[in-house]
Amino acid sequence: MRILGLDPGLRNLGWGVIEVAGGRIRHIANGVCRTDAGEGLPARLLALHSALTEVVARLAPDCAAVEQTFVSKDAVATLKLGQARAIALLVPAQAGIPIGEYAPNAVKKTVVGVGHAAKEQVDHMVRLQFPAVPIAGPDAADALAIALTHAHQHRGADRLAAALARAGAAAEGQA
Amino acid sequence: MRILGLDPGLRNLGWGVIEVAGGRIRHIANGVCRTDAGEGLPARLLALHSALTEVVARLAPDCAAVEQTFVSKDAVATLKLGQARAIALLVPAQAGIPIGEYAPNAVKKTVVGVGHAAKEQVDHMVRLQFPAVPIAGPDAADALAIALTHAHQHRGADRLAAALARAGAAAEGQA
Repeated sequence: MRILGLDPGLRNLGWGVIEVAGGRIRHIANGVCRTDAGEGLPARLLALHSALTEVVARLAPDCAAVEQTFVSKDAVATLKLGQARAIALLVPAQAGIPIGEYAPNAVKKTVVGVGHAAKEQVDHMVRLQFPAVPIAGPDAADALAIALTHAHQHRGADRLAAALARAGAAAEGQA
Repeated sequence: MRILGLDPGLRNLGWGVIEVAGGRIRHIANGVCRTDAGEGLPARLLALHSALTEVVARLAPDCAAVEQTFVSKDAVATLKLGQARAIALLVPAQAGIPIGEYAPNAVKKTVVGVGHAAKEQVDHMVRLQFPAVPIAGPDAADALAIALTHAHQHRGADRLAAALARAGAAAEGQA
């Protein structure tokens, strides 16, 4: 299973693709789609959409994961983030890929072990997980962290499904 | 010149197309792209994108106009609006159509004559402007009001350009 993690931002939209196979996690690629703050908003959204569409076409992920948006008190920042986030949700939807959404605390808890970890710790742990991999910047590291969260959630779900199947088989055995 | 006015919202995205030719303004079409609040956000953004792309392909506007977003104190509402607005900006950008943005007060001032008019007055004046036209709802009326604002702004710009050309010709005549 290939997972595309996305960390949306209007100026820097981080992305990272990992592959989960046989219980092992492998890094595939990561990067940042950047837009020029001097350009108009339509041109910037178009640039993000084009760049992300190219990433999805090239790397063919099976699913995507996006962080739930932190709604700040700065309404203008929230609006900008909402606009970038729409692109991050639209592109996988256009490719017919399911999208998981994770709270920032869930991402930190998965990657660092505690929900209140600093951003730098997330970055550090992602680099530890993929030691030989050049990481395009903190937004790409965040995107990989979100992809890892999705992988662990699914692993958890798979384990639960397996446990339920075993429990079901045992119950049938007893019946 | 065909103008597509857009009133973005996640649940109801209003649109209206008018045509300006020889100083006259004609209604072409209007409608509302609706999404189901029970669906996930990616599916809703995809539905808005598909519906609006179809409108642009079918009606072939030369330009688009969108209201500048009113940033409310409700951060969750601002985020939703930002996401819907991204689609309203992306679709014309994908079609290579220039997009004008107008402050809500500018729209009211153009359509009603005062910047602090109530929403109902805008609706009423749009229906007066296009008496024989069925209007799909208040969001479609707002979208037509935004298109009218763009038309009037351009007419103003054309008049200014014509006045400047005349002034230039007069200055040359004097030289």
